[in-house]
Amino acid sequence: MRLSRYFMPVLKEDPKEAQIVSHRLMLRAGMIKQQAAGIYSWLPLGYKVLRRIEQIVHEEQARAGHIAMLMPTLQSADLWCESGRYDDYGEEMLRIKDRHKRDLLYGPTNEEMITDIFRSHVNSYKDLPLTLYHIQWKFRDEIRPRFGVMRGREFLMKDGYNFDLTKEDALHAYNRHLVSYLRSYERMGLQAIPMRADGGPIGGDYTHEFLVLAETGESEVFYDSEITDLKFGDRAIDYDDVAECQAVLEEFTSRYARTDETHDAALFEQIPETRRRQARGIEVGQIFYFGTKYSEPMGATVVGPDGTRVPVHMGSHGIGVSRLLGAIIEASHDDKGIIWPEGVTPFHVGIVNLKQGDASTDGACGALYAELKAQGLDPLYDDRDERAGAKFATMDLIGLPWRITVGPRGLAANKVELTARRTGESVELSPQEAVARLKEIYQPVFDAAQ
Amino acid sequence: MRLSRYFMPVLKEDPKEAQIVSHRLMLRAGMIKQQAAGIYSWLPLGYKVLRRIEQIVHEEQARAGHIAMLMPTLQSADLWCESGRYDDYGEEMLRIKDRHKRDLLYGPTNEEMITDIFRSHVNSYKDLPLTLYHIQWKFRDEIRPRFGVMRGREFLMKDGYNFDLTKEDALHAYNRHLVSYLRSYERMGLQAIPMRADGGPIGGDYTHEFLVLAETGESEVFYDSEITDLKFGDRAIDYDDVAECQAVLEEFTSRYARTDETHDAALFEQIPETRRRQARGIEVGQIFYFGTKYSEPMGATVVGPDGTRVPVHMGSHGIGVSRLLGAIIEASHDDKGIIWPEGVTPFHVGIVNLKQGDASTDGACGALYAELKAQGLDPLYDDRDERAGAKFATMDLIGLPWRITVGPRGLAANKVELTARRTGESVELSPQEAVARLKEIYQPVFDAAQ
Repeated sequence: MRLSRYFMPVLKEDPKEAQIVSHRLMLRAGMIKQQAAGIYSWLPLGYKVLRRIEQIVHEEQARAGHIAMLMPTLQSADLWCESGRYDDYGEEMLRIKDRHKRDLLYGPTNEEMITDIFRSHVNSYKDLPLTLYHIQWKFRDEIRPRFGVMRGREFLMKDGYNFDLTKEDALHAYNRHLVSYLRSYERMGLQAIPMRADGGPIGGDYTHEFLVLAETGESEVFYDSEITDLKFGDRAIDYDDVAECQAVLEEFTSRYARTDETHDAALFEQIPETRRRQARGIEVGQIFYFGTKYSEPMGATVVGPDGTRVPVHMGSHGIGVSRLLGAIIEASHDDKGIIWPEGVTPFHVGIVNLKQGDASTDGACGALYAELKAQGLDPLYDDRDERAGAKFATMDLIGLPWRITVGPRGLAANKVELTARRTGESVELSPQEAVARLKEIYQPVFDAAQ
Repeated sequence: MRLSRYFMPVLKEDPKEAQIVSHRLMLRAGMIKQQAAGIYSWLPLGYKVLRRIEQIVHEEQARAGHIAMLMPTLQSADLWCESGRYDDYGEEMLRIKDRHKRDLLYGPTNEEMITDIFRSHVNSYKDLPLTLYHIQWKFRDEIRPRFGVMRGREFLMKDGYNFDLTKEDALHAYNRHLVSYLRSYERMGLQAIPMRADGGPIGGDYTHEFLVLAETGESEVFYDSEITDLKFGDRAIDYDDVAECQAVLEEFTSRYARTDETHDAALFEQIPETRRRQARGIEVGQIFYFGTKYSEPMGATVVGPDGTRVPVHMGSHGIGVSRLLGAIIEASHDDKGIIWPEGVTPFHVGIVNLKQGDASTDGACGALYAELKAQGLDPLYDDRDERAGAKFATMDLIGLPWRITVGPRGLAANKVELTARRTGESVELSPQEAVARLKEIYQPVFDAAQ
């Protein structure tokens, strides 16, 4: 993309309404615009990141054998009366009446609807196991929406639901979700720690929240420092292998890691003092096993191998897709702006032309731009007639992890500068070498998508 | 995908509620499930087609230089009061009150919001031309939703908005949209004819609707038969070239083609009688130029080259993404079921194993499946323990354009059968040849995505 043709309305001033850094930087970088309290438009740069995150979630869910579909944003109130949650949900549920005075609601989650779909179509244990998910906009009418997309009212969430014949099978589905979530977050450049959590309104005997450590996190967390050394990495995993998935669960959840909701001071004290950590975290996902909580009242049963009908064992599993943008920025920024991890960056590299209008720099930048695109990379070329300082400041603010600077002096020696946003370190390379180096840098990102 | 692991709840009986073939076939093929009047879940097979259509729209919009973003589903009523449409819109607008009794609405379209975004951030003619679009769920509270996704209440639409300094520039944007829409529909296997239309509630001096001919179409259309010979094809186009885009507009709109709303019997009679056609059509898109209708009341102005502020010239341009599934099926089916065009088919090819459980057919099917995937194709392997007739009927119903049949007799001679859904014609090929043939068939689809 050429910046002269893009729509990226960066702000010069810090917006007053933003209390936390991710909100401030998303507004300043022209990623979002508030349309009503807790309701945002995703401007082109923000939308690109949102799509990258969505894409990672889709890829990792497919890898785990989970099946994508899409439920509508609006739901009939009837289903929620069946489960008993219509009254329970309180004022956070946005209730709507259509022109025929029928009660609708803007879905805050989809347990009821997916259970209805299941019971309408599945009849036999032979059709299990089954895990369905979607990535859809949801609404929670928060009394005080704040922190930008971190606590919005209209938000994008991936929610998946497993249906299994037995508790054991459902716990394997739970483990598959844990593994796929670890992989997803790592691909986004995040360390999200599974912590023992509280069931809350969805209910659940087994549940873990995934938390990203960040000073601005809303949750207080307590953990064994050994847990931050764990990395899923690019190890191969067979999602059908029960023992293999169980081993990952044990590896990532056997050390102490809890939010204040489930914190147990006595247990915590048993960790050697040097490893005890107390910090703040941002919740970016949660997995639940809740057994027959919905299948029983709603009659979601299958005929088992012995010919009798049994309610299915279910779980639900969520990733806060839109909130993740905020979480990633909270975890990865500096005084100058955002620092995108390679896996989610809106553009792979920025090209800064130090002398727009100069035939040699314009030519070199145009050629670089074309070559990067030909190599499957997605560059943002700042071809505006602006001074170098302003171009650098914009690139630093929007946080592309790599920048190529092209100036007449370097070009005379066939050199451009490749700069890492995170470290600020630069190397001089020929344009060809810079392209090759970037291809190398992004190869793991492309490989992970396979 | 292996069918044994998929969720594709085909129905054996014709659903009573479906009045038109696309609705019936989408229900029977397990593509959608109604959740409330005019509100649908997109089951995995339906969702896959929806995504393919979305992807084509994104690719063609990017090619035309239009920029993707995303506006929220809910909007504040304030903006609609500014434009004067809050009262005009009537009962089709779903009006909502949040917990603080603030007036929201579920957006039926986005002229007001995009104009607000524009006026908040763009100040100078130097930032023009600009075309922003999104693909987002919308809601129109139809009094009698029917025909499945063809006239739903919650529906997915691509809507794009151009902002230009002059009428001439805005008409070039209009032409860019016309060209990009022609390309998009052709990639979906559709012939969508631009017909002179009526401005309607959005208003507009220049507007064309795109109609797909189909017996079940809601509109009566009148056209010169020469128009159905026109094809955009894979010609190269420079979207910045004003004359080139204008020539396409003239080519595709100079012959008589109108809906009953704008039909002019006297003009129609001037066509030679043998070329006069009266038929029915389904509207799948519309483009508008409406000048300063929104920019003036809402103060969306830029400083022009002479230093004075002028309201921008705008247009809006829509593609009915979810409705397109219905339109494609209406235009492409037979007694046995759907016939997907290659560009949008949920899976590229179905594999039917005639003797599930037989080591040789299972092995050959597994190898074919792996090889097709390795070649970048997306196969659906019917690995269920079902008789051949049922497998064929399912494949015909869901309408994959190609099927490979693998049986023990053929395999003994290293042959499988490749069958075209549209013609029913089969050829015997070695498995390797079948893969190569399919790669060849789909190459234009992959090329079009570049």
